[in-house]
Amino acid sequence: MGPGPSDVSPRVLNAMARPTLGHLDPLFIQLMDDIKSLLQYAFKTRNSLTMPVSAPGSAGMEACFVNLVEPGDKVIVCINGVFGQRMVENVIRCGGEAIKVEDAWGQQTNLNKVEDALKAHPDARIVAFVHAETSTGVRNDAAALCQLARQYDCLSIVDAVTSLGGIEVDVDGWGIDAVYSGSQKCLSCVPGLSPVSFSPRAVEFIQQRQSPVQSWFLDMNLIVGYWGQGGKRAYHHTAPVNSLYALHESLLMLHEEGLEQAWQRHQQGHVKLRDGLAALGMQFAVDEAYRLPQLNAVCIPQGVDDGAARARLLNDFNLEIGAGLGALAGKVWRIGLMGYACKDRNIDHCIASLGKVVR
Amino acid sequence: MGPGPSDVSPRVLNAMARPTLGHLDPLFIQLMDDIKSLLQYAFKTRNSLTMPVSAPGSAGMEACFVNLVEPGDKVIVCINGVFGQRMVENVIRCGGEAIKVEDAWGQQTNLNKVEDALKAHPDARIVAFVHAETSTGVRNDAAALCQLARQYDCLSIVDAVTSLGGIEVDVDGWGIDAVYSGSQKCLSCVPGLSPVSFSPRAVEFIQQRQSPVQSWFLDMNLIVGYWGQGGKRAYHHTAPVNSLYALHESLLMLHEEGLEQAWQRHQQGHVKLRDGLAALGMQFAVDEAYRLPQLNAVCIPQGVDDGAARARLLNDFNLEIGAGLGALAGKVWRIGLMGYACKDRNIDHCIASLGKVVR
Repeated sequence: MGPGPSDVSPRVLNAMARPTLGHLDPLFIQLMDDIKSLLQYAFKTRNSLTMPVSAPGSAGMEACFVNLVEPGDKVIVCINGVFGQRMVENVIRCGGEAIKVEDAWGQQTNLNKVEDALKAHPDARIVAFVHAETSTGVRNDAAALCQLARQYDCLSIVDAVTSLGGIEVDVDGWGIDAVYSGSQKCLSCVPGLSPVSFSPRAVEFIQQRQSPVQSWFLDMNLIVGYWGQGGKRAYHHTAPVNSLYALHESLLMLHEEGLEQAWQRHQQGHVKLRDGLAALGMQFAVDEAYRLPQLNAVCIPQGVDDGAARARLLNDFNLEIGAGLGALAGKVWRIGLMGYACKDRNIDHCIASLGKVVR
Repeated sequence: MGPGPSDVSPRVLNAMARPTLGHLDPLFIQLMDDIKSLLQYAFKTRNSLTMPVSAPGSAGMEACFVNLVEPGDKVIVCINGVFGQRMVENVIRCGGEAIKVEDAWGQQTNLNKVEDALKAHPDARIVAFVHAETSTGVRNDAAALCQLARQYDCLSIVDAVTSLGGIEVDVDGWGIDAVYSGSQKCLSCVPGLSPVSFSPRAVEFIQQRQSPVQSWFLDMNLIVGYWGQGGKRAYHHTAPVNSLYALHESLLMLHEEGLEQAWQRHQQGHVKLRDGLAALGMQFAVDEAYRLPQLNAVCIPQGVDDGAARARLLNDFNLEIGAGLGALAGKVWRIGLMGYACKDRNIDHCIASLGKVVR
């Protein structure tokens, strides 16, 4: 019950242990097509360029930036946690200029500040933000931020690592241009894959950009030859075949449950956890209006030793919860209710264990 | 029995299906330490910076180039197949200048040509080459090439994707500065991880380079905080936990068999396959003096339809072999004898099946 990797269902683990097929085997290519369709369902998109990057979420982030940022490009980056800051690092390493819009950790990104930045930088090309900030438990207003980006003729890059499968991510409805997620959060797959999706106008930009994409491994112009539509697949790199079996199975499970039902389950789990923590006198670090159900940042009670308490939870109660990061290190714990792990039994165990450790 | 991914032992598949631990769990960190030691054994090195990159071999290649090449750097790249050409792509995308030393596909890299290039470009900083060219089945003379690099004060970058575990790779003995491999070849692990190792002088360069590494995900200065020595591990990205269980198990199996014994098994398998193919009248595309035992490029017999024959092998005989790539497309097949797949039963089946298909 940390901030991810979340618990993986035995069904997914068993799928992953199937014999390894070749990455150009016709049966495997069929599975790739299924994964694409299932990801389109999860992302609510018809984007043809929708597939998993063969590496963790950080590489998915990098895939979005290296493909969409050219040297000298101005990118407005919203920062209210660790992952907004990591986006800035990506912009700089692509030779771009990051225009930072900063808000306090635990607060939402302020839309007025973003609009001010767009007005002050009419030459900005991209707006980038984190939908669900894993470091703080804050949900940013993705629909409104994407609308602002369109209004000022910018592309949008959205981090949906922790949101996908846990709360609504509406790629087409919100007009997201590039989005990346992670396999190991609310999808409850093993860590190591990063689903991404690019809008037609993002694809058009990538095809026509002036400078080559600086990463060969993440160059979508090349990857599309392997993951693209149609029968013929060209070798680019060797796909992580067994991890893709696992992703396929976890996406099937999401599809069987239904997207809306999965969001509801996360919300119900959050309410149950919230009430249990309130009974223990514990406070949330994030306002309920923009709190993520799947990532609960709670204040460490006064007088409780952060490391010792988490070690006791792990060793005596077989329960992992996450430490605070960056500005919130030592101040909060992060309790994940992600995917397969978001169920009553776990929440009861978490509340009971915390009750023994923090009192 | 293609060019990889190779067959994965049930023992490795079962290890991978163990419950997912957190990437900062003390038990998992112990496993990371074990993986490092086992990789040092496999690479024959004491290099402290020895670990698996959390992505396939192509990303391991990129990790070596983005960390060691600065804009404007001259890199001598030996090309005698697909993967030498991919190295050139990497140099260019790092802003470096690639000095190409080209030999025919199926031939060894010519040492005299490399020395001529080193003399003609006294400002070259790096010599890069592929030890075992997966696209042709050629073994380049890694010891001699590394010695040349040292002699002319260059660092060496070595592609050992297909060699590690199948033939000798002596990182310390040969003085390799940066080396990358793949999990899915002679280690017979699932695809998706790329073991790498950097010499102390490579590490020193990376720490002191003028420009930041252009990839955040592959920046060794950051990754070392997670994979480095010592108790304290800082989060960089979420490690592919289950794939690392698999790598650990496959490295354990290599250690139990013994490195030398594994090389011997690959050589014996090659001899058995060679004799069987000779009895069918089939020719090798590569001279025996520098032929890889684990990757056998054989000429497609006249009058045999490439695609139809491979499809028949796959569908009727449950046997995958590889197509030719690039200059050798349609001319050769590539028969892998890698790791767990290199055993008598497979070789007998391969020869018997080919006997039915090519006649």
